[in-house]
Amino acid sequence: MTVRVHNFSVSLDGYGTGEGQTREAPFGHAGERLHEWFFPARAGVDAVFAAAHDPGIGAEIMGRNKFDAGTGPWPDDDWVGWWGDEPPFHTPVFVLTHHPRPPIEMKGGTTFHFVDAEPAEAVQLATEAAGGLDVRLGGGPTTVREFLAADLVDHMHVVVVPIVLGRGVRLWDGLEGLEERFDVETTGSPSGVAHVTMTRRR
Amino acid sequence: MTVRVHNFSVSLDGYGTGEGQTREAPFGHAGERLHEWFFPARAGVDAVFAAAHDPGIGAEIMGRNKFDAGTGPWPDDDWVGWWGDEPPFHTPVFVLTHHPRPPIEMKGGTTFHFVDAEPAEAVQLATEAAGGLDVRLGGGPTTVREFLAADLVDHMHVVVVPIVLGRGVRLWDGLEGLEERFDVETTGSPSGVAHVTMTRRR
Repeated sequence: MTVRVHNFSVSLDGYGTGEGQTREAPFGHAGERLHEWFFPARAGVDAVFAAAHDPGIGAEIMGRNKFDAGTGPWPDDDWVGWWGDEPPFHTPVFVLTHHPRPPIEMKGGTTFHFVDAEPAEAVQLATEAAGGLDVRLGGGPTTVREFLAADLVDHMHVVVVPIVLGRGVRLWDGLEGLEERFDVETTGSPSGVAHVTMTRRR
Repeated sequence: MTVRVHNFSVSLDGYGTGEGQTREAPFGHAGERLHEWFFPARAGVDAVFAAAHDPGIGAEIMGRNKFDAGTGPWPDDDWVGWWGDEPPFHTPVFVLTHHPRPPIEMKGGTTFHFVDAEPAEAVQLATEAAGGLDVRLGGGPTTVREFLAADLVDHMHVVVVPIVLGRGVRLWDGLEGLEERFDVETTGSPSGVAHVTMTRRR
Protein backbone atom coordinates (compact mmCIF):
# COMPACT_ATOMS: atom_id res chain seq x y z
CA MET A 1 0.00 0.00 0.00
CA THR A 2 1.32 3.40 -0.92
CA VAL A 3 0.13 6.96 -0.45
CA ARG A 4 0.17 8.82 -3.75
CA VAL A 5 -0.35 12.38 -4.95
CA HIS A 6 -1.38 12.80 -8.59
CA ASN A 7 -1.80 15.79 -10.88
CA PHE A 8 -1.03 18.32 -8.18
CA SER A 9 -0.42 21.62 -9.98
CA VAL A 10 1.80 24.40 -8.68
CA SER A 11 2.79 27.71 -10.22
CA LEU A 12 6.41 28.71 -10.89
CA ASP A 13 6.31 30.61 -7.61
CA GLY A 14 5.13 27.51 -5.76
CA TYR A 15 1.46 28.23 -5.15
CA GLY A 16 -0.88 25.24 -5.16
CA THR A 17 -3.98 27.42 -5.19
CA GLY A 18 -4.82 31.10 -5.39
CA GLU A 19 -5.97 33.63 -2.84
CA GLY A 20 -9.60 34.25 -1.92
CA GLN A 21 -11.29 30.84 -2.13
CA THR A 22 -15.10 30.87 -2.16
CA ARG A 23 -17.74 28.33 -3.19
CA GLU A 24 -17.92 30.18 -6.50
CA ALA A 25 -14.11 30.27 -6.91
CA PRO A 26 -12.59 27.05 -5.53
CA PHE A 27 -9.08 28.14 -6.55
CA GLY A 28 -9.52 31.80 -5.67
CA HIS A 29 -7.92 34.32 -8.03
CA ALA A 30 -6.06 31.46 -9.77
CA GLY A 31 -9.30 30.40 -11.45
CA GLU A 32 -8.66 27.44 -13.74
CA ARG A 33 -5.17 28.55 -14.71
CA LEU A 34 -3.42 25.82 -12.72
CA HIS A 35 -5.54 23.12 -14.36
CA GLU A 36 -5.84 24.16 -17.96
CA TRP A 37 -3.31 21.47 -18.89
CA PHE A 38 -5.62 18.85 -17.38
CA PHE A 39 -9.10 19.59 -18.57
CA PRO A 40 -9.35 20.62 -22.21
CA ALA A 41 -8.70 17.90 -24.77
CA ARG A 42 -5.61 16.60 -23.06
CA ALA A 43 -3.25 14.56 -25.17
CA GLY A 44 0.24 13.15 -25.23
CA VAL A 45 2.28 13.10 -22.07
CA ASP A 46 -0.29 15.22 -20.22
CA ALA A 47 -2.92 12.55 -20.89
CA VAL A 48 -0.64 9.77 -19.70
CA PHE A 49 0.00 11.51 -16.40
CA ALA A 50 -3.61 12.59 -15.96
CA ALA A 51 -4.83 9.02 -16.43
CA ALA A 52 -2.74 7.75 -13.51
CA HIS A 53 -5.11 9.52 -11.12
CA ASP A 54 -7.55 6.65 -10.58
CA PRO A 55 -6.20 3.14 -11.23
CA GLY A 56 -5.34 1.23 -8.09
CA ILE A 57 -6.76 3.82 -5.72
CA GLY A 58 -9.10 2.59 -2.95
CA ALA A 59 -9.57 5.75 -0.91
CA GLU A 60 -8.78 9.47 -0.94
CA ILE A 61 -7.74 11.87 1.79
CA MET A 62 -8.43 15.56 1.25
CA GLY A 63 -8.24 18.73 3.27
CA ARG A 64 -11.34 20.66 4.30
CA ASN A 65 -10.68 23.27 1.61
CA LYS A 66 -10.68 20.75 -1.20
CA PHE A 67 -14.24 19.91 -0.13
CA ASP A 68 -15.51 23.38 0.77
CA ALA A 69 -14.36 26.98 1.18
CA GLY A 70 -13.92 28.45 4.63
CA THR A 71 -12.85 27.19 8.04
CA GLY A 72 -14.54 26.64 11.40
CA PRO A 73 -18.03 25.18 11.95
CA TRP A 74 -19.80 24.13 8.74
CA PRO A 75 -22.14 26.90 7.61
CA ASP A 76 -24.80 24.45 6.36
CA ASP A 77 -25.41 20.77 5.66
CA ASP A 78 -26.38 21.17 2.00
CA TRP A 79 -22.93 21.57 0.45
CA VAL A 80 -21.64 18.30 -1.02
CA GLY A 81 -18.51 19.63 -2.74
CA TRP A 82 -17.85 21.04 -6.19
CA TRP A 83 -18.46 17.85 -8.14
CA GLY A 84 -22.23 17.44 -8.41
CA ASP A 85 -24.24 14.31 -7.52
CA GLU A 86 -21.63 11.87 -8.76
CA PRO A 87 -18.14 12.97 -7.68
CA PRO A 88 -15.17 11.57 -9.64
CA PHE A 89 -13.70 9.65 -6.70
CA HIS A 90 -15.82 6.46 -6.61
CA THR A 91 -14.23 5.44 -3.28
CA PRO A 92 -14.41 6.45 0.37
CA VAL A 93 -13.06 10.01 0.78
CA PHE A 94 -11.75 11.21 4.13
CA VAL A 95 -12.19 14.95 4.57
CA LEU A 96 -9.92 16.33 7.31
CA THR A 97 -11.73 18.76 9.57
CA HIS A 98 -11.78 19.82 13.18
CA HIS A 99 -15.59 19.76 12.89
CA PRO A 100 -16.70 16.15 12.28
CA ARG A 101 -20.19 15.54 10.89
CA PRO A 102 -22.10 12.50 9.57
CA PRO A 103 -20.85 10.92 6.34
CA ILE A 104 -22.44 11.79 3.00
CA GLU A 105 -23.02 9.00 0.52
CA MET A 106 -23.01 10.12 -3.10
CA LYS A 107 -23.80 8.40 -6.38
CA GLY A 108 -21.11 6.30 -8.01
CA GLY A 109 -19.43 4.93 -4.91
CA THR A 110 -18.10 8.11 -3.31
CA THR A 111 -18.77 8.50 0.41
CA PHE A 112 -17.42 11.57 2.20
CA HIS A 113 -16.27 10.85 5.76
CA PHE A 114 -15.47 13.88 7.92
CA VAL A 115 -12.71 13.10 10.37
CA ASP A 116 -10.68 15.08 12.91
CA ALA A 117 -7.43 13.19 12.47
CA GLU A 118 -3.69 13.77 12.36
CA PRO A 119 -2.01 12.82 9.07
CA ALA A 120 -0.80 9.42 10.31
CA GLU A 121 -4.27 8.57 11.67
CA ALA A 122 -5.85 9.62 8.40
CA VAL A 123 -3.53 7.34 6.46
CA GLN A 124 -4.48 4.47 8.77
CA LEU A 125 -8.22 5.13 8.33
CA ALA A 126 -7.91 5.44 4.56
CA THR A 127 -5.73 2.35 4.30
CA GLU A 128 -8.33 0.29 6.16
CA ALA A 129 -11.04 1.62 3.83
CA ALA A 130 -8.99 1.08 0.67
CA GLY A 131 -9.29 -2.70 0.71
CA GLY A 132 -5.70 -3.39 -0.21
CA LEU A 133 -5.49 -0.67 -2.83
CA ASP A 134 -3.50 2.57 -2.60
CA VAL A 135 -4.50 5.82 -0.94
CA ARG A 136 -4.58 9.04 -2.91
CA LEU A 137 -3.74 12.27 -1.11
CA GLY A 138 -5.90 14.71 -3.00
CA GLY A 139 -4.79 18.10 -1.68
CA GLY A 140 -5.02 21.02 -1.24
CA PRO A 141 -1.54 22.42 -0.77
CA THR A 142 -1.72 22.74 3.01
CA THR A 143 -2.74 19.10 3.34
CA VAL A 144 -0.07 17.83 0.94
CA ARG A 145 2.54 19.92 2.75
CA GLU A 146 1.55 18.49 6.14
CA PHE A 147 1.72 14.90 4.88
CA LEU A 148 5.10 15.55 3.22
CA ALA A 149 6.41 17.04 6.45
CA ALA A 150 5.27 13.88 8.27
CA ASP A 151 7.01 11.75 5.59
CA LEU A 152 3.75 9.97 4.74
CA VAL A 153 3.90 10.39 0.94
CA ASP A 154 5.38 7.55 -1.14
CA HIS A 155 4.87 8.96 -4.61
CA MET A 156 4.08 12.48 -5.75
CA HIS A 157 3.30 13.80 -9.21
CA VAL A 158 3.58 17.58 -9.26
CA VAL A 159 2.81 19.63 -12.35
CA VAL A 160 4.78 22.86 -12.57
CA VAL A 161 2.59 25.26 -14.54
CA PRO A 162 4.49 28.18 -16.10
CA ILE A 163 2.47 30.96 -14.53
CA VAL A 164 3.28 33.36 -11.70
CA LEU A 165 0.31 33.45 -9.31
CA GLY A 166 1.86 35.95 -6.89
CA ARG A 167 -0.40 34.99 -3.96
CA GLY A 168 -2.31 32.08 -2.57
CA VAL A 169 -1.29 28.97 -0.63
CA ARG A 170 2.26 27.73 -1.11
CA LEU A 171 3.03 24.02 -1.38
CA TRP A 172 6.74 23.93 -0.52
CA ASP A 173 7.00 26.07 2.63
CA GLY A 174 8.81 24.35 5.49
CA LEU A 175 9.99 21.46 3.31
CA GLU A 176 13.65 22.45 2.82
CA GLY A 177 15.67 19.51 1.53
CA LEU A 178 12.57 17.47 0.67
CA GLU A 179 14.26 16.13 -2.48
CA GLU A 180 16.78 14.19 -0.40
CA ARG A 181 14.06 11.67 0.47
CA PHE A 182 12.94 11.15 -3.13
CA ASP A 183 14.10 10.06 -6.55
CA VAL A 184 13.01 12.81 -8.92
CA GLU A 185 12.21 12.71 -12.63
CA THR A 186 10.99 15.51 -14.87
CA THR A 187 9.10 15.34 -18.16
CA GLY A 188 8.32 18.43 -20.21
CA SER A 189 5.13 18.75 -22.20
CA PRO A 190 4.21 20.68 -25.35
CA SER A 191 1.48 22.28 -23.24
CA GLY A 192 4.22 24.13 -21.36
CA VAL A 193 3.95 22.31 -18.05
CA ALA A 194 6.64 20.15 -16.45
CA HIS A 195 5.62 16.86 -14.86
CA VAL A 196 7.83 16.23 -11.82
CA THR A 197 7.55 12.83 -10.14
CA MET A 198 9.03 12.21 -6.72
CA THR A 199 9.29 8.60 -5.56
CA ARG A 200 10.36 7.99 -1.97
CA ARG A 201 13.66 6.19 -1.62
CA ARG A 202 13.51 2.88 0.23
CA MET B 1 19.17 43.86 -30.08
CA THR B 2 17.55 41.84 -27.36
CA VAL B 3 18.08 41.43 -23.62
CA ARG B 4 18.40 37.77 -22.74
CA VAL B 5 18.62 35.67 -19.59
CA HIS B 6 20.26 32.26 -19.94
CA ASN B 7 20.65 29.29 -17.62
CA PHE B 8 19.03 31.01 -14.68
CA SER B 9 18.30 28.27 -12.13
CA VAL B 10 15.50 28.39 -9.59
CA SER B 11 14.34 25.83 -7.04
CA LEU B 12 10.83 24.39 -6.97
CA ASP B 13 10.02 26.96 -4.31
CA GLY B 14 11.25 29.77 -6.55
CA TYR B 15 14.59 30.67 -4.98
CA GLY B 16 17.30 31.86 -7.37
CA THR B 17 19.99 31.65 -4.72
CA GLY B 18 20.32 30.51 -1.12
CA GLU B 19 20.58 32.37 2.15
CA GLY B 20 23.84 33.58 3.67
CA GLN B 21 26.02 34.60 0.73
CA THR B 22 29.72 35.11 1.49
CA ARG B 23 32.84 35.24 -0.66
CA GLU B 24 33.37 31.59 0.24
CA ALA B 25 29.75 30.64 -0.51
CA PRO B 26 28.48 32.66 -3.50
CA PHE B 27 25.10 30.88 -3.42
CA GLY B 28 24.82 30.72 0.38
CA HIS B 29 23.36 27.55 1.83
CA ALA B 30 22.31 26.45 -1.68
CA GLY B 31 25.93 25.63 -2.50
CA GLU B 32 26.17 24.22 -6.02
CA ARG B 33 22.79 22.48 -5.89
CA LEU B 34 21.12 24.90 -8.29
CA HIS B 35 23.87 24.43 -10.86
CA GLU B 36 24.70 20.74 -10.76
CA TRP B 37 22.80 20.29 -14.02
CA PHE B 38 25.15 22.81 -15.67
CA PHE B 39 28.65 21.95 -14.59
CA PRO B 40 29.42 18.24 -14.52
CA ALA B 41 29.68 16.52 -17.89
CA ARG B 42 26.55 18.06 -19.27
CA ALA B 43 24.96 16.31 -22.20
CA GLY B 44 21.78 16.17 -24.25
CA VAL B 45 19.21 18.90 -23.85
CA ASP B 46 21.06 20.39 -20.87
CA ALA B 47 24.11 20.90 -23.07
CA VAL B 48 22.09 22.52 -25.83
CA PHE B 49 20.59 25.04 -23.45
CA ALA B 50 23.85 25.67 -21.62
CA ALA B 51 25.64 26.41 -24.89
CA ALA B 52 23.24 29.25 -25.72
CA HIS B 53 24.82 31.33 -22.96
CA ASP B 54 27.51 33.03 -25.07
CA PRO B 55 26.83 33.22 -28.83
CA GLY B 56 25.68 36.63 -30.00
CA ILE B 57 26.24 38.33 -26.65
CA GLY B 58 28.16 41.62 -26.64
CA ALA B 59 27.78 42.72 -23.02
CA GLU B 60 26.47 41.51 -19.67
CA ILE B 61 24.59 43.26 -16.90
CA MET B 62 24.83 41.78 -13.40
CA GLY B 63 23.81 42.78 -9.91
CA ARG B 64 26.33 43.63 -7.22
CA ASN B 65 25.81 40.23 -5.57
CA LYS B 66 26.71 38.30 -8.68
CA PHE B 67 30.10 40.05 -8.51
CA ASP B 68 30.64 40.09 -4.74
CA ALA B 69 28.93 39.28 -1.47
CA GLY B 70 27.62 42.06 0.73
CA THR B 71 26.12 45.50 0.20
CA GLY B 72 27.19 49.07 0.87
CA PRO B 73 30.67 50.51 0.31
CA TRP B 74 33.16 48.04 -1.17
CA PRO B 75 35.24 46.47 1.63
CA ASP B 76 38.42 46.40 -0.52
CA ASP B 77 39.68 46.89 -4.06
CA ASP B 78 41.27 43.46 -4.43
CA TRP B 79 38.19 41.38 -5.14
CA VAL B 80 37.67 40.73 -8.85
CA GLY B 81 34.77 38.27 -8.65
CA TRP B 82 34.58 34.51 -8.30
CA TRP B 83 36.00 33.65 -11.72
CA GLY B 84 39.77 34.06 -11.47
CA ASP B 85 42.01 36.08 -13.80
CA GLU B 86 40.06 35.24 -16.94
CA PRO B 87 36.31 35.44 -16.30
CA PRO B 88 34.01 33.56 -18.70
CA PHE B 89 32.30 36.70 -20.05
CA HIS B 90 34.83 38.01 -22.62
CA THR B 91 32.80 41.23 -23.03
CA PRO B 92 32.12 44.41 -21.09
CA VAL B 93 30.22 43.60 -17.88
CA PHE B 94 28.13 46.24 -16.13
CA VAL B 95 27.93 45.64 -12.38
CA LEU B 96 25.01 47.50 -10.82
CA THR B 97 25.97 49.21 -7.57
CA HIS B 98 25.18 52.34 -5.63
CA HIS B 99 28.93 52.62 -5.04
CA PRO B 100 30.65 53.23 -8.40
CA ARG B 101 34.40 52.60 -8.66
CA PRO B 102 36.95 52.49 -11.50
CA PRO B 103 36.59 49.71 -14.05
CA ILE B 104 38.65 46.52 -13.80
CA GLU B 105 40.09 45.06 -16.98
CA MET B 106 40.60 41.30 -16.85
CA LYS B 107 42.23 38.80 -19.20
CA GLY B 108 40.22 37.48 -22.12
CA GLY B 109 38.22 40.58 -22.94
CA THR B 110 36.16 40.99 -19.77
CA THR B 111 36.05 44.49 -18.29
CA PHE B 112 33.94 45.11 -15.20
CA HIS B 113 32.26 48.52 -15.16
CA PHE B 114 30.62 49.59 -11.91
CA VAL B 115 27.60 51.75 -12.53
CA ASP B 116 24.87 53.28 -10.41
CA ALA B 117 22.06 52.96 -12.94
CA GLU B 118 18.37 52.17 -13.13
CA PRO B 119 17.49 49.07 -15.21
CA ALA B 120 16.60 51.06 -18.34
CA GLU B 121 19.82 53.08 -18.14
CA ALA B 122 21.83 49.90 -17.67
CA VAL B 123 20.27 48.40 -20.78
CA GLN B 124 21.18 51.54 -22.71
CA LEU B 125 24.81 51.46 -21.50
CA ALA B 126 25.16 47.76 -22.22
CA THR B 127 23.55 48.08 -25.62
CA GLU B 128 26.02 50.81 -26.61
CA ALA B 129 28.90 48.62 -25.43
CA ALA B 130 27.58 45.47 -27.13
CA GLY B 131 28.41 46.65 -30.64
CA GLY B 132 25.21 45.48 -32.24
CA LEU B 133 25.10 42.17 -30.37
CA ASP B 134 22.66 41.18 -27.64
CA VAL B 135 22.83 41.97 -23.94
CA ARG B 136 22.81 39.17 -21.39
CA LEU B 137 21.20 39.84 -18.05
CA GLY B 138 23.30 37.64 -15.80
CA GLY B 139 21.49 37.75 -12.46
CA GLY B 140 21.17 37.38 -9.55
CA PRO B 141 17.51 36.92 -8.76
CA THR B 142 16.93 40.44 -7.43
CA THR B 143 18.38 41.94 -10.62
CA VAL B 144 16.44 39.66 -12.95
CA ARG B 145 13.24 40.39 -11.01
CA GLU B 146 13.76 44.16 -11.30
CA PHE B 147 14.36 43.97 -15.06
CA LEU B 148 11.30 41.73 -15.53
CA ALA B 149 9.20 44.18 -13.52
CA ALA B 150 10.41 46.97 -15.82
CA ASP B 151 9.55 44.81 -18.87
CA LEU B 152 13.13 44.96 -20.15
CA VAL B 153 13.66 41.23 -20.77
CA ASP B 154 13.03 39.87 -24.27
CA HIS B 155 13.98 36.25 -23.75
CA MET B 156 14.45 34.27 -20.56
CA HIS B 157 15.67 30.72 -20.05
CA VAL B 158 14.86 29.55 -16.54
CA VAL B 159 15.90 26.14 -15.25
CA VAL B 160 13.56 24.72 -12.63
CA VAL B 161 15.71 22.48 -10.46
CA PRO B 162 13.74 19.88 -8.46
CA ILE B 163 15.01 20.86 -5.02
CA VAL B 164 13.33 22.73 -2.18
CA LEU B 165 15.73 25.40 -0.89
CA GLY B 166 13.41 26.74 1.78
CA ARG B 167 15.18 30.12 2.08
CA GLY B 168 17.20 32.56 0.05
CA VAL B 169 16.28 35.14 -2.59
CA ARG B 170 13.11 34.54 -4.58
CA LEU B 171 12.94 35.24 -8.30
CA TRP B 172 9.19 35.54 -8.87
CA ASP B 173 8.03 37.88 -6.08
CA GLY B 174 5.99 40.82 -7.32
CA LEU B 175 5.67 39.41 -10.85
CA GLU B 176 2.07 38.13 -10.73
CA GLY B 177 0.78 37.46 -14.24
CA LEU B 178 4.25 37.68 -15.80
CA GLU B 179 3.42 34.85 -18.21
CA GLU B 180 0.84 37.01 -20.00
CA ARG B 181 3.69 38.96 -21.63
CA PHE B 182 5.54 35.86 -22.83
CA ASP B 183 5.23 32.77 -24.99
CA VAL B 184 6.33 29.90 -22.79
CA GLU B 185 7.83 26.52 -23.69
CA THR B 186 9.04 23.76 -21.38
CA THR B 187 11.51 20.97 -22.03
CA GLY B 188 12.23 18.26 -19.48
CA SER B 189 15.66 16.74 -19.08
CA PRO B 190 16.88 13.33 -17.90
CA SER B 191 18.89 15.26 -15.30
CA GLY B 192 15.59 16.11 -13.61
CA VAL B 193 15.50 19.81 -14.42
CA ALA B 194 12.89 21.57 -16.56
CA HIS B 195 14.04 24.16 -19.06
CA VAL B 196 11.42 26.91 -19.30
CA THR B 197 11.86 29.51 -22.03
CA MET B 198 9.87 32.72 -22.02
CA THR B 199 9.91 34.83 -25.17
CA ARG B 200 8.29 38.24 -25.04
CA ARG B 201 5.27 38.64 -27.29
CA ARG B 202 5.53 41.35 -29.88
